[in-house]
Amino acid sequence: MTASGNGLVAQSGGPTAVINNSVCGVVQGWKKMNSDILYGALYGIRGVLEETFIDLTKQSSRIIKGLKNTPGAALGSCRYKVKSEADYHQLLSVFKKHDIRYFFYIGGNDSMDTAYKVHSLAQSEGYEMKVVGIPKTVDNDLPYTDHCPGYGSAAKYLATVVLNTGIDLSSLITTNNIVVMEAMGRNTGWLAAASALAKSREDDPPHLICLPEVPFNRERFLTDVSEKYRDLGFLYIVASEGLVDENGRYVFAKESRDSFGHVQLGGVADALKTLIEKEIKLKVRCNVLGTVQRSAMHFASQVDAEEAYLVGHQAVALASQGDSGRMVTLERVEEDYLCKTGSIELNCVANVEKKIPPEMITDNGFGVSDKFIRYARPLIQGEVLFSTQNGLPLYVSLSGYRSRNAL
Amino acid sequence: MTASGNGLVAQSGGPTAVINNSVCGVVQGWKKMNSDILYGALYGIRGVLEETFIDLTKQSSRIIKGLKNTPGAALGSCRYKVKSEADYHQLLSVFKKHDIRYFFYIGGNDSMDTAYKVHSLAQSEGYEMKVVGIPKTVDNDLPYTDHCPGYGSAAKYLATVVLNTGIDLSSLITTNNIVVMEAMGRNTGWLAAASALAKSREDDPPHLICLPEVPFNRERFLTDVSEKYRDLGFLYIVASEGLVDENGRYVFAKESRDSFGHVQLGGVADALKTLIEKEIKLKVRCNVLGTVQRSAMHFASQVDAEEAYLVGHQAVALASQGDSGRMVTLERVEEDYLCKTGSIELNCVANVEKKIPPEMITDNGFGVSDKFIRYARPLIQGEVLFSTQNGLPLYVSLSGYRSRNAL
Repeated sequence: MTASGNGLVAQSGGPTAVINNSVCGVVQGWKKMNSDILYGALYGIRGVLEETFIDLTKQSSRIIKGLKNTPGAALGSCRYKVKSEADYHQLLSVFKKHDIRYFFYIGGNDSMDTAYKVHSLAQSEGYEMKVVGIPKTVDNDLPYTDHCPGYGSAAKYLATVVLNTGIDLSSLITTNNIVVMEAMGRNTGWLAAASALAKSREDDPPHLICLPEVPFNRERFLTDVSEKYRDLGFLYIVASEGLVDENGRYVFAKESRDSFGHVQLGGVADALKTLIEKEIKLKVRCNVLGTVQRSAMHFASQVDAEEAYLVGHQAVALASQGDSGRMVTLERVEEDYLCKTGSIELNCVANVEKKIPPEMITDNGFGVSDKFIRYARPLIQGEVLFSTQNGLPLYVSLSGYRSRNAL
Repeated sequence: MTASGNGLVAQSGGPTAVINNSVCGVVQGWKKMNSDILYGALYGIRGVLEETFIDLTKQSSRIIKGLKNTPGAALGSCRYKVKSEADYHQLLSVFKKHDIRYFFYIGGNDSMDTAYKVHSLAQSEGYEMKVVGIPKTVDNDLPYTDHCPGYGSAAKYLATVVLNTGIDLSSLITTNNIVVMEAMGRNTGWLAAASALAKSREDDPPHLICLPEVPFNRERFLTDVSEKYRDLGFLYIVASEGLVDENGRYVFAKESRDSFGHVQLGGVADALKTLIEKEIKLKVRCNVLGTVQRSAMHFASQVDAEEAYLVGHQAVALASQGDSGRMVTLERVEEDYLCKTGSIELNCVANVEKKIPPEMITDNGFGVSDKFIRYARPLIQGEVLFSTQNGLPLYVSLSGYRSRNAL
């Protein structure tokens, strides 16, 4: 490290299957380079504000290694938008109080905004601190990085269950021969699109993929459903939770908003079911995976897990070189497949969403091109090994981690 | 075999992750004992009526072995209730035409009724034929068998995703801190109950399990939700699709019926979400796995897969001894854990549902006892090994299997 002082790592937003690989990367990177304390904040930025820390350098190496195959946020996470000046000054005073000179923040767009503001405030106040963002999101919507840690595992899992349920659907003649699978992804269709990895042949499920990048046209959708159903005798649809109409309005949003002020998505599958059953009188079954798709460590991508570790490890390296106000990125060197890390200024990433480019979407808007498949396939390769006990995966807990009711 | 003649195997109703293990058991058992043809009917009993057969003895051993880790119904299946006299006589005439002297029918309660009637008709018409039922259902609701092939894998998978999503939920502080997971199981709670296998400690998810065996009491449910949420700061509920009220009426059934005349279930999670959000103003997220839970070959139970194979193999052995009109059963010899096969008359099984006995349910009605855990845990042990290609499971297709639009 360029200067002594303690470190702090925190996790933010929705967990991914591999987010703890990044914590592991930070801890192992830190211990190689530094003898000061590396704190972990419990439950994200709230844990920083409330000074609920644990000392990660004192965890056993068995537990730190076990993070590599434990889903959820091992430190705890939160959705809490740091908005007020008072909050930011409180953060800085906590950093000063604990002599925290290195802050590693694992999160998505919103978290990079927070990290950027912390970095700027520290600079303007003349407090020497290195702030490095570590990308994480199953939505894969961060710009300036080829892809986001967490995406590959969610993509692999979604493609696997579409493969499994597609075989189930096609092999059973019953009265509801249409399945709608709802995928996460917020305002981008990266995750829904990954379901296309389940296809070996043109007629394999999924037959229609509804992406937020393509404005939803009710009539065209119903026409395609009718025609494909007539041809196949069954139909598999994958729909992204963030589907929008031609005016950019959420087609099927619920009314509530989360604490970042985002509209709470969900209900697309049910809405499409209602539409199809009403307009073309075919029965539909919905599969809504919800948080299952972001926690599926039991079939996570090895490539994704290794990259999640790598960006954590690299964040420590960047900070130790004296870099601050940057997020680690992944850069694809060869299409088939070599990946290295880079970095980008946090303010370029903050609050920006990267959508699927048009050339990765088929002309009819209900599928993805070969270019997308070549992009996504390398990200789902390999499986994360894990131990089992009594027939179920065996996970670790950080020593000193507190259950929520104690907060 | 006691007499020469051809065999026929068919699959019925909803597939399970391991149903094709039973086909594999029948084929390998048959080939050991017999040199006549073993037909497979495409798409269940409809394939028998329509004489759409493939010759299973001509499949490559690689494909037959590959059935052991391929989900869905490899022969195709259907929900078609054989009701009319004409249908039964048509079945018998097809059997006679193809000199089919052995009929193996893989299915649940309804299918055992069909098999029984085929057996009875053959007897009364003096047509020498052995009919043996092979149990299969994720619902685990067949009587006279300790458990049903297909259940262990669905149970293992459900417990795993409850474990994963439970960790996800407990590690994230957000505005919707309650998850409702909807489980299959029709009128019995065996599958929902299996989610309790995810618990290591009393306070681990799932916190409430709503079973059809316990009449749903709205007030008691809301009281328990409020109290547990207050204690924990989050809450994980698993609800069985077939929940009934104190008058035995489905609490949240949709109006439609399937072709067996069964009410089409689903929507319990949404209904509980609405109830909680309206009455106690807490936000809820639903995870509805649907067919995902019966096709999850990527984390299937080895014990279950082996037993599914065993009952298929044993069906051939029974028929070869001259038995007919019987279903193969599984008998638990030692609690911890040894299992052998037995058999029972088909008419004892037909249309009967086995519910969870009261001693396996906790006094408050929202959980399961240790007795249930001791019953279920051995059934989820071990994992089925499978090959992957391009990061996804690699499955087989029977040669000659036709896609549905060709029917």
